[in-house]
Amino acid sequence: VAWGPNTNIKWSLPAVCFVWQLSMIILFGVFVRYNEESDTHWVDYRKENNITSDIENDYYFRYPSFQDVHVMIFVGFGFLMTFLKRYSFGAVGFNFLVAAFGIQWALLMQGWFHSLDYTDGKIKIGIENLINADFCVAGCLIAYGAVLGKVSPVQLLVMTLFGVTLFAVEEYIILNVLHAKDAGGSMVIHTFGAYYGLSISWVLYRPNLDKSKHLNGSVYHSDVFAMIGTLFLWMFWPSFNSAIADHGDGQHRAAINTYLALASTVLTTVAMSSLFEKTGKLDMVHIQNSTLAGGVAVGTAAEFMLSPYGSLIVGFFCGIISTLGYIYFSPFLEEKLKIQDTCGIHNLHAMPGVIGGIVGAISAAAATNTVYGDLGLENTFDFTGPFAKRVPTIQGGYQAAGLCVALCFGIGGGIFVGLVLKLPIWGDPADENCFDDEIYWEKCTISKQSSHMPLISPLWEVSM
Amino acid sequence: VAWGPNTNIKWSLPAVCFVWQLSMIILFGVFVRYNEESDTHWVDYRKENNITSDIENDYYFRYPSFQDVHVMIFVGFGFLMTFLKRYSFGAVGFNFLVAAFGIQWALLMQGWFHSLDYTDGKIKIGIENLINADFCVAGCLIAYGAVLGKVSPVQLLVMTLFGVTLFAVEEYIILNVLHAKDAGGSMVIHTFGAYYGLSISWVLYRPNLDKSKHLNGSVYHSDVFAMIGTLFLWMFWPSFNSAIADHGDGQHRAAINTYLALASTVLTTVAMSSLFEKTGKLDMVHIQNSTLAGGVAVGTAAEFMLSPYGSLIVGFFCGIISTLGYIYFSPFLEEKLKIQDTCGIHNLHAMPGVIGGIVGAISAAAATNTVYGDLGLENTFDFTGPFAKRVPTIQGGYQAAGLCVALCFGIGGGIFVGLVLKLPIWGDPADENCFDDEIYWEKCTISKQSSHMPLISPLWEVSM
Amino acid sequence: VAWGPNTNIKWSLPAVCFVWQLSMIILFGVFVRYNEESDTHWVDYRKENNITSDIENDYYFRYPSFQDVHVMIFVGFGFLMTFLKRYSFGAVGFNFLVAAFGIQWALLMQGWFHSLDYTDGKIKIGIENLINADFCVAGCLIAYGAVLGKVSPVQLLVMTLFGVTLFAVEEYIILNVLHAKDAGGSMVIHTFGAYYGLSISWVLYRPNLDKSKHLNGSVYHSDVFAMIGTLFLWMFWPSFNSAIADHGDGQHRAAINTYLALASTVLTTVAMSSLFEKTGKLDMVHIQNSTLAGGVAVGTAAEFMLSPYGSLIVGFFCGIISTLGYIYFSPFLEEKLKIQDTCGIHNLHAMPGVIGGIVGAISAAAATNTVYGDLGLENTFDFTGPFAKRVPTIQGGYQAAGLCVALCFGIGGGIFVGLVLKLPIWGDPADENCFDDEIYWEKCTISKQSSHMPLISPLWEVSM
Repeated sequence: VAWGPNTNIKWSLPAVCFVWQLSMIILFGVFVRYNEESDTHWVDYRKENNITSDIENDYYFRYPSFQDVHVMIFVGFGFLMTFLKRYSFGAVGFNFLVAAFGIQWALLMQGWFHSLDYTDGKIKIGIENLINADFCVAGCLIAYGAVLGKVSPVQLLVMTLFGVTLFAVEEYIILNVLHAKDAGGSMVIHTFGAYYGLSISWVLYRPNLDKSKHLNGSVYHSDVFAMIGTLFLWMFWPSFNSAIADHGDGQHRAAINTYLALASTVLTTVAMSSLFEKTGKLDMVHIQNSTLAGGVAVGTAAEFMLSPYGSLIVGFFCGIISTLGYIYFSPFLEEKLKIQDTCGIHNLHAMPGVIGGIVGAISAAAATNTVYGDLGLENTFDFTGPFAKRVPTIQGGYQAAGLCVALCFGIGGGIFVGLVLKLPIWGDPADENCFDDEIYWEKCTISKQSSHMPLISPLWEVSM
Repeated sequence: VAWGPNTNIKWSLPAVCFVWQLSMIILFGVFVRYNEESDTHWVDYRKENNITSDIENDYYFRYPSFQDVHVMIFVGFGFLMTFLKRYSFGAVGFNFLVAAFGIQWALLMQGWFHSLDYTDGKIKIGIENLINADFCVAGCLIAYGAVLGKVSPVQLLVMTLFGVTLFAVEEYIILNVLHAKDAGGSMVIHTFGAYYGLSISWVLYRPNLDKSKHLNGSVYHSDVFAMIGTLFLWMFWPSFNSAIADHGDGQHRAAINTYLALASTVLTTVAMSSLFEKTGKLDMVHIQNSTLAGGVAVGTAAEFMLSPYGSLIVGFFCGIISTLGYIYFSPFLEEKLKIQDTCGIHNLHAMPGVIGGIVGAISAAAATNTVYGDLGLENTFDFTGPFAKRVPTIQGGYQAAGLCVALCFGIGGGIFVGLVLKLPIWGDPADENCFDDEIYWEKCTISKQSSHMPLISPLWEVSM
Repeated sequence: VAWGPNTNIKWSLPAVCFVWQLSMIILFGVFVRYNEESDTHWVDYRKENNITSDIENDYYFRYPSFQDVHVMIFVGFGFLMTFLKRYSFGAVGFNFLVAAFGIQWALLMQGWFHSLDYTDGKIKIGIENLINADFCVAGCLIAYGAVLGKVSPVQLLVMTLFGVTLFAVEEYIILNVLHAKDAGGSMVIHTFGAYYGLSISWVLYRPNLDKSKHLNGSVYHSDVFAMIGTLFLWMFWPSFNSAIADHGDGQHRAAINTYLALASTVLTTVAMSSLFEKTGKLDMVHIQNSTLAGGVAVGTAAEFMLSPYGSLIVGFFCGIISTLGYIYFSPFLEEKLKIQDTCGIHNLHAMPGVIGGIVGAISAAAATNTVYGDLGLENTFDFTGPFAKRVPTIQGGYQAAGLCVALCFGIGGGIFVGLVLKLPIWGDPADENCFDDEIYWEKCTISKQSSHMPLISPLWEVSM
């Protein structure tokens, strides 16, 4: 096996890791401190503010959800991408690297926009910041799905640096300037992340990618590994969509809506997968991915009074659309639009994300005092302060505007970053070496061995 | 490889999925709404009821346990069944499908019996309903274990439709009519589910199943995948048994009792497994399954004052009995009683479930005011309202009656549903195609390949 | 394949399991009861103590963290050790056995030291005891990493019996006598456990271990299985370090510090791994292990005001040191010091643990009233009762003393237990049978099959 000398990342990867990590330390030193709930002064703060119990600390409202989200980011995204027969190290390992960098950079970028204490110029962090950092990284990991197997870890780090930056800005515009709501991030995370990744993949189009076609597929047990990712994403999605929702009914309702939307999606995904095969067999690709579309699409509206059947309806259509996407749209994307999308993020994140934004806009516009209650309406949409006079119909318009912002940032940012990544300095693999762990990982070279010894090991083939 | 044309489920599977999912949407539209803790009116409800903090929302008492239970249902049950060398897709995938449908139908069925608001005829759901739906589905997934590899996904869906229905009725009789307690579901979930599955398997007996004997076993790594299921079930079982227990000491005690019973089971399982092999080797089947028996058996009594050593004793005997079941009773069941039990649910759920019911009855009958305290006794057994005059000894009798109800529903329901599933319309595999993913899954056909190319891939055999 | 007749554990393993489990039941019967928060008298206790809500039960403060820790113990440690190509059953299975015994013995040992109610001579247990039992077992599982593949399950149980006992004593000395703080157990768990295991491995040195060299390594998918362990350890480490920290800001801050330290470690681990390979490739051994070093090292200081950038700095250096350990120090340990350390626990637990103890001592000594607040300082370091007059600088000295105690107990205890394990009665494998599941597990014998049939199964090599 030959590969271009350019996949040597012996200097670039360590350099990027060291320099960026040192920068994080310096920036954290200058800017980041504990907030009043994670600082030892909490004990004074409690007394001053008549908080009766430690359990009122935001930590207890959000920590269980945080840990679930954390699992989604590292095990969910990581293992979902292990489906390729020969890229499991890259899937899990680079996902790990990119997310570990991204959460630090996100704490800073989101901190400057959302958690800056103007009295001392410091970012004050607590559990909600950790969740938001994980969310921010999710956008970049979605984008990774489009370029899986075709880029170097250095490129992934660059993608993440820019991705987190763009994310923080679009999030600020959508949530703060437009005052749109997006608890589960259909727009902010999924739409942005998916179009960011697709645009990058478009710019990095490889006309001769079929040279590594033999590795661009799964084997039996790599599909089983991928199901670990699928299931942890599916199971913990209610935590994802409720993690930063309002205390009390907000978190409660977001979890219920997501639980239901996801259940519905599974059935229509199975139905469509079976319907489009000769003898009604199921395709693992659909089960691994399209079953999750309902969680994406219910993200924005999860904390609204979408009602249980509303959630089921959203899930119902997303299972159908996402599976059809894998069957018809992915080949079209690749052949006509020249977008090579390894994991099919267009079907799992882009389309369901846009649907989620639209569902959010419609359900916000349709909100009434009867359904929500006066206080409930004010609470759910935060019609307070400068937004005290906003009404649901107007809110619906701002929600739609938010969706456009996410799309623009995703596409525009993706094209820009794609051009940066096209520079011939990042150590990406040649076409014939894509989807192969051998390029970036030690001790998994099969080529040398295969020339002088039989490669069949009896070790894993026992008790048949 | 030849299989009957009847395994074509191209129309039946999509039809069932679509029609049933549409029915769910309609029924949810008519019947299901948020309850007062997941509705935006919570903010008003809080004020009216002087609830001092959002953290008093039931969501915060139960959400962590809910997510653990959710993992048990989808990863625990799913991966536990991946032990077969060639049925991992069916194990994880059909488990996923069946559970996703079952939780919706369970929300309705259990809702009508337990959460119907008579003022407006609506089912009002919150986090506890989601947990109960997961519990209800657990009964059907246990039953799946008996028929694993021998039925079509359409049959599994039919099994689940009836299973959930029967479950909701027996649960209503046991918990509401008899007023028995069963926090961890030894009777309601495990006894019912196991006898339901065993009865179905008895009706569907295949005399020539040894035609697919070569696939009815594990390989090295399928056993490792199965350990993922085992461990997530084992670790989260304290959450399972405490998820719907009383707030405060009830949940606390249920978690402790389950933790201890399970620890004890592991040691006696290992002891028995080693004792019955020539050189003291361990059998993975026992480690994967019998180690969980203590969790089943401590289900009913988990919230009682079973005391820590009581829990250890329950676990001690269950490890022994369950392992002996795999060694002696499973062959007997198959040869003499004509019950083919793929996963050995008789040893993991049926016997421990019955033991759990008996332990529950005895420990309820033995409850005293000295041990529980007056208030504690009333709280634990809910001796209020129409049951205010019930005493522990009587309660013990009702507990025993509950066990009988679970048994009757399991056996009777199973025989009926077995007969329904015997109809030659469900696309089940021929005897020689059992335990083979090839029948229902795309891209895992080995037969064609094996005829014209060497099947040995070097890809997974590296760095030896 | 030949092995010594001494690997027959048909009598010793069942005997140890039964006798020890029976002893546990008797000792629990005599000593262990529920504490006031898990007993039905909680309802009275609440009223008497004006506790306004059930949510004030310690269960709700700690249960989510407990379950995360539980996952780390059983899935995290278990799967991390599956990296060996042919010892996955032993890794996951013996880890399971040892931990299940250890938590029971730990509840007793730690209970006598920490939770004995002197009014009735009973140990009163609640959720915090379960967490501490898991912690205690973690020390023994760390030690298992050094001897993985080279000892019998009986030896492991003996190791655990003594390990838990030694742990409870050193913990008592460090936390109670010296009044050092060690929320995440850098000293108490990691330093002790690692040196305990390394000392045992030193005493059990096998000069001819290279006879089983061919099995002392990984294959592609065993490395993927190991990543399950790595990631669950990494993700849930914030729960580990915060599980028994102070309510409120203590738990909150411990989670943040650990999250940050771990993120930082990933980047420097990747950097070092890449830097020391010819073409910048990564080594899975480093990614699986060194990425966790930051969590170890931030254990003691996690609940202190280490500040976010302080955590990043700790993680930064630990990634470097731990990876260098794998590259340079492990070979040195084996060749010069005759310590065979299968999993490299010296690099993952010993060095980072010592660093953690030192960081803890320094940050305690540097604590000021300005940073902590008067109340915060008193709370964080528990400067109350007999320790009311202690000041930070003195506390720093006691922290350092604690580290020495952990080291002494680890090394001294390990040498003693190593000598016990050297007795020729424990059924350990011959040098040529190390790292081989075949010795202790049924149905994974490859030798007999290989003599009369081709061992290549097509089953796992499909859809290429």
